[in-house]
Amino acid sequence: MTLRVALGPSSFAEKDPEPRLVLERAGVELVINPHKRRLNEAEIIELLASGVDGLIAGLEPLNRRVLASAAPRLRAVARVGIGVTNVDFEAARELGIKVSSTPEPPAQAVAELTITALLALVRNLVPMNQGLHAGGWSKSIGTGLIGLNVLLIGYGRIGRRVGAMLRPFGARLMVCDPFIDPATLTEDELLVGLNEGLAAADAVSLHAAGTSCLLGRAELARMRPGAWLLNSARGELVDETALVEALQSGHLAGAWFDAFWQEPYTGPLLGLEQVLLTPHAATYTKQCRRAMETEAAINLLRDLNANA
Amino acid sequence: MTLRVALGPSSFAEKDPEPRLVLERAGVELVINPHKRRLNEAEIIELLASGVDGLIAGLEPLNRRVLASAAPRLRAVARVGIGVTNVDFEAARELGIKVSSTPEPPAQAVAELTITALLALVRNLVPMNQGLHAGGWSKSIGTGLIGLNVLLIGYGRIGRRVGAMLRPFGARLMVCDPFIDPATLTEDELLVGLNEGLAAADAVSLHAAGTSCLLGRAELARMRPGAWLLNSARGELVDETALVEALQSGHLAGAWFDAFWQEPYTGPLLGLEQVLLTPHAATYTKQCRRAMETEAAINLLRDLNANA
Repeated sequence: MTLRVALGPSSFAEKDPEPRLVLERAGVELVINPHKRRLNEAEIIELLASGVDGLIAGLEPLNRRVLASAAPRLRAVARVGIGVTNVDFEAARELGIKVSSTPEPPAQAVAELTITALLALVRNLVPMNQGLHAGGWSKSIGTGLIGLNVLLIGYGRIGRRVGAMLRPFGARLMVCDPFIDPATLTEDELLVGLNEGLAAADAVSLHAAGTSCLLGRAELARMRPGAWLLNSARGELVDETALVEALQSGHLAGAWFDAFWQEPYTGPLLGLEQVLLTPHAATYTKQCRRAMETEAAINLLRDLNANA
Repeated sequence: MTLRVALGPSSFAEKDPEPRLVLERAGVELVINPHKRRLNEAEIIELLASGVDGLIAGLEPLNRRVLASAAPRLRAVARVGIGVTNVDFEAARELGIKVSSTPEPPAQAVAELTITALLALVRNLVPMNQGLHAGGWSKSIGTGLIGLNVLLIGYGRIGRRVGAMLRPFGARLMVCDPFIDPATLTEDELLVGLNEGLAAADAVSLHAAGTSCLLGRAELARMRPGAWLLNSARGELVDETALVEALQSGHLAGAWFDAFWQEPYTGPLLGLEQVLLTPHAATYTKQCRRAMETEAAINLLRDLNANA
């Protein structure tokens, strides 16, 4: 019987045919997402209902109801990306569905967009560019990264790449991570507690896992006046109301958010021009998409015992 | 007699008093630029006419007429910054006026803004940010630096820092510099000729000295379709008309200019949203201003044989 594989993310192989060719070369029949956007529970159930052996997954809600509706034919889910909080692992295990993800390729792309946003914020890139295009010529003094204290909250796969990218710019690196082995740190990485780090940092970047709030009102108040906050991890790590107040009062100079409390994001950060916003696009590079999607396709074929 | 020093750049010690204090601690009397902008020939002659021993200089036209008008009392010119093309060295030598500059501190700041602009261009930062602030949520696939061919034209003080900053992003480095000693290159820096480099580069960044045109119509045509051009060096290095055509036709994907043919710049690049523009602000960071201005003050006192 021909293997059937549903493609959850509408962007799969959109820009580069290689990941799709990996599946087609293995003789797989593809079931396409007809909505061209992220599927909700009813829609993903419908997509799987035609009978599929595997799913290339984005951030669709793969809860027990969804997985149970497609079992027992559904035997493998291959997530394109790092996070798997949208998957009910317990249900998948009970239903005999294998789950894989592609954590490596996105790390470089996320770290890179973090540095992009940090540099743009401290060097006033967006307002200077807007000013010139509007016919002005107003020089403003920005801040260089040299000697700047940068706190990385979470020092795993992504945080470590951010650290490595920061080094040639001369930033001083502070890291805060309860799960870190101090033996893996180098001489120029200062391990700090959260409160100590927040009080000393000129810029704070979130690279932690989980969804519990790390930066509430009290923590934001501990940050240095004029500091910047960067969040490519999860919206839930920050108290949105307290953040907006800290930005409006000028306590924080600016922020960058790529991950939000709800997506698409329509909240109050849209009205603050000192906030850089990107649409959860940190992994959206040609190189990363190709590597993640190809790896997901290979993972899925492996878990279906098919020959790639 | 009290030493008198004219301050050409209106921004001198504006944000940080330290460079001014260096002069004041030495007992120097300061003569201030009253126009709060770059002085023209008549204005700099007027500023010097009150009788000064030294000049802290920006990019004022320090030609023979200007220098001769202030000699023999004027004995030293200390340029805040790298470039000294605004100074007639021959006239200065004949008039016994010592000229100094501060090439080291700006190099880091210029390299940093170059990387800022390169990352912003390849990762679509500005259009994504604009889209969200306008209420949209449109993900676009950008390009990562990983595996990207970046050609640095000019591999001196600034170009080498750009190279070092690019390395952790995984870019492939090509360098073109007729004055380079190949023995100073490392294994991952590929020395290329200009035409060879232009044909292979995904991004080209200018860090060359001089003002003769390096990228005319023929050279721009040799660049890869969809490539980016970065210019923090001099407007004159690029043929403006040919550049605008290459951008309008889509042959080049985008560009960043911080240095222009005339400044303030009011030319056709303003109308092209795929071009990032900054107002010759690559050295405008707190850290760089402080270091350059302090160094210029110390250079001036040294050349006037005053005690700092």
